[in-house]
Amino acid sequence: MREWKPHPRAADSLKGSLGQAVLGEQVWACCDPAPLSFAPLRDPAPSPTRQSSRAVQGRVRRRSPPARLSHRCRPGRACTTLREQHLVPKEHRHCPAGAGMLELPFLPFCALLGGLGAVCVAFVSAWCQRWRGGFAWDGSAQMFNWHPVLMVTGMVVLYGAAALVYRLPFSWSGPKFPWKVLHGALALVAFGLAVLGLVAVFSFHNAQGTPNMYSLHSWLGLATVLLFSCQWLAGFVSFLLPWAPAWLRALYKPVHVFFGSTILTLAMVSCVSGINEKLFFSLKNGTTAYSQLPSEAVFANTLGLLILLFGVLVLWALARPDWKRPEPDSVEAHQPLLSAER
Amino acid sequence: MREWKPHPRAADSLKGSLGQAVLGEQVWACCDPAPLSFAPLRDPAPSPTRQSSRAVQGRVRRRSPPARLSHRCRPGRACTTLREQHLVPKEHRHCPAGAGMLELPFLPFCALLGGLGAVCVAFVSAWCQRWRGGFAWDGSAQMFNWHPVLMVTGMVVLYGAAALVYRLPFSWSGPKFPWKVLHGALALVAFGLAVLGLVAVFSFHNAQGTPNMYSLHSWLGLATVLLFSCQWLAGFVSFLLPWAPAWLRALYKPVHVFFGSTILTLAMVSCVSGINEKLFFSLKNGTTAYSQLPSEAVFANTLGLLILLFGVLVLWALARPDWKRPEPDSVEAHQPLLSAER
Repeated sequence: MREWKPHPRAADSLKGSLGQAVLGEQVWACCDPAPLSFAPLRDPAPSPTRQSSRAVQGRVRRRSPPARLSHRCRPGRACTTLREQHLVPKEHRHCPAGAGMLELPFLPFCALLGGLGAVCVAFVSAWCQRWRGGFAWDGSAQMFNWHPVLMVTGMVVLYGAAALVYRLPFSWSGPKFPWKVLHGALALVAFGLAVLGLVAVFSFHNAQGTPNMYSLHSWLGLATVLLFSCQWLAGFVSFLLPWAPAWLRALYKPVHVFFGSTILTLAMVSCVSGINEKLFFSLKNGTTAYSQLPSEAVFANTLGLLILLFGVLVLWALARPDWKRPEPDSVEAHQPLLSAER
Repeated sequence: MREWKPHPRAADSLKGSLGQAVLGEQVWACCDPAPLSFAPLRDPAPSPTRQSSRAVQGRVRRRSPPARLSHRCRPGRACTTLREQHLVPKEHRHCPAGAGMLELPFLPFCALLGGLGAVCVAFVSAWCQRWRGGFAWDGSAQMFNWHPVLMVTGMVVLYGAAALVYRLPFSWSGPKFPWKVLHGALALVAFGLAVLGLVAVFSFHNAQGTPNMYSLHSWLGLATVLLFSCQWLAGFVSFLLPWAPAWLRALYKPVHVFFGSTILTLAMVSCVSGINEKLFFSLKNGTTAYSQLPSEAVFANTLGLLILLFGVLVLWALARPDWKRPEPDSVEAHQPLLSAER
């Protein structure tokens, strides 16, 4: 027998809306306009999307028999997926939070995004290997080549993966702590790669006698990595160490989320300005000029556009309300919000 | 006597949550947990923030006497501003949607943002005037100088202003149509400036015999302007012309919102890569090299960072849930959603 449980966000929202008197009756459905008039689904045909672990998450327990509500069912949104529409009176089939938003399962999107991230890493590595002379760690131009590879891999692809951890449907059940550790660990690896990327470019400049930190790209790139270090440290202290008071966590969380997206945006800007700058540097004396658009230029320009596509898709996934982890938010911001989740 | 009216989003959300039976009783408050136990505010002391037009927007009418609920009061959020806390039983004082989010009035923020936008335009104009030889429209380098000025003014500052029109509190009452026209008109002016900016750079290149469209900056910049033209046309046809069916408007609206933020992000990336590229071009033969960080380089690098700050603040303002225009969303996505607003 499958375990059905009330949706935490739903119950809390209803608690706020209806008050204790209404809550005296157990709230089983996240946006159940007429609980007693529901017709149970009898032996529903299995479908791939409905069988996913994510779908199971949002389903709700009813005393008997269980009605299977959509996993997209959220407070303020009625259940309008095809399978549920007949359960809900027509006048309640509304969807204010995501009206018109295309129903898209996260996991296939995530697989597509993972593929795109791998393509970005492959492109930047192929560019440096085929056209820029490959890799070394000796202060030469081959050492510089680690800079774009490590920055794209760390600050864009791994950073994006870390940002999306809480969007994984199977992270929504059970304790949050292991997922926090995974989020922090992925971000830490991303940060480590970024630091190595900085070491690569500073070592190359110092070995060649080139000044550091003069271009807009360098100012912005360093600012992005510094912001990332502050973000990681503040996140670690606030959400992973047990000593931060709950009111501080609640206050800091939206700031952390905002800077999460901002740092990714700045990383995208840094990557594109860096690729543009590198092509102007490299494609001049002795090689086909950038303005003649040799194959290297087409390839690296395409890399820049792919990085932007990857970043924009991550930002889009982060912003989609129906992919966000349902948080138990019945408690007030200044009460021990996250203590039970440590 | 002040006019009190029910909050549209609130009433609709409750409709979805409670069903017709509960809605049989008039819903006056947006998240009123215990309507009958409310103690009315007796002769409340006026305060500047509470007297703003925005505050009036969110207030709700009660039969007698009126209880003044916070303008931040939204479905799923209880009223937790200081003045209302005593009205709400402690167990219902929760704020899931914006837990921990700083209360910040939009209009002072908007004034700050307007100032920052003006500084960006002043900086890019001063850069071209003081260090790049001023302006002309004759195919010379002075003609090129219109390119950064028009792009920053159009694609960043005016575009940001157009995006924020619906965040103005006084746009929330009355018909939406005039605000749609303002939104579309500002975007059209921004697009016109961007086209002029493209004409400036193409004319300069053609006059000098420089190839067009080879750098990553040029690919990205042109893609951004083309995306913007599609966005404007689709928005005009869908939301301003009367012939688009309501289901299409409802389906397209989140896409329009998403591409609105994306195009601004791409414009920021284009500006930064363009400034970086221009400095490498300009600061070499006969002038102090970019790598020596002359005053022009410091000034233009700062311009790049200011543009990013402006863009990130606009994206942040667009994403803040409590600054979004409350929409009447009781109707289903596939029913005439916007027809009453024309």
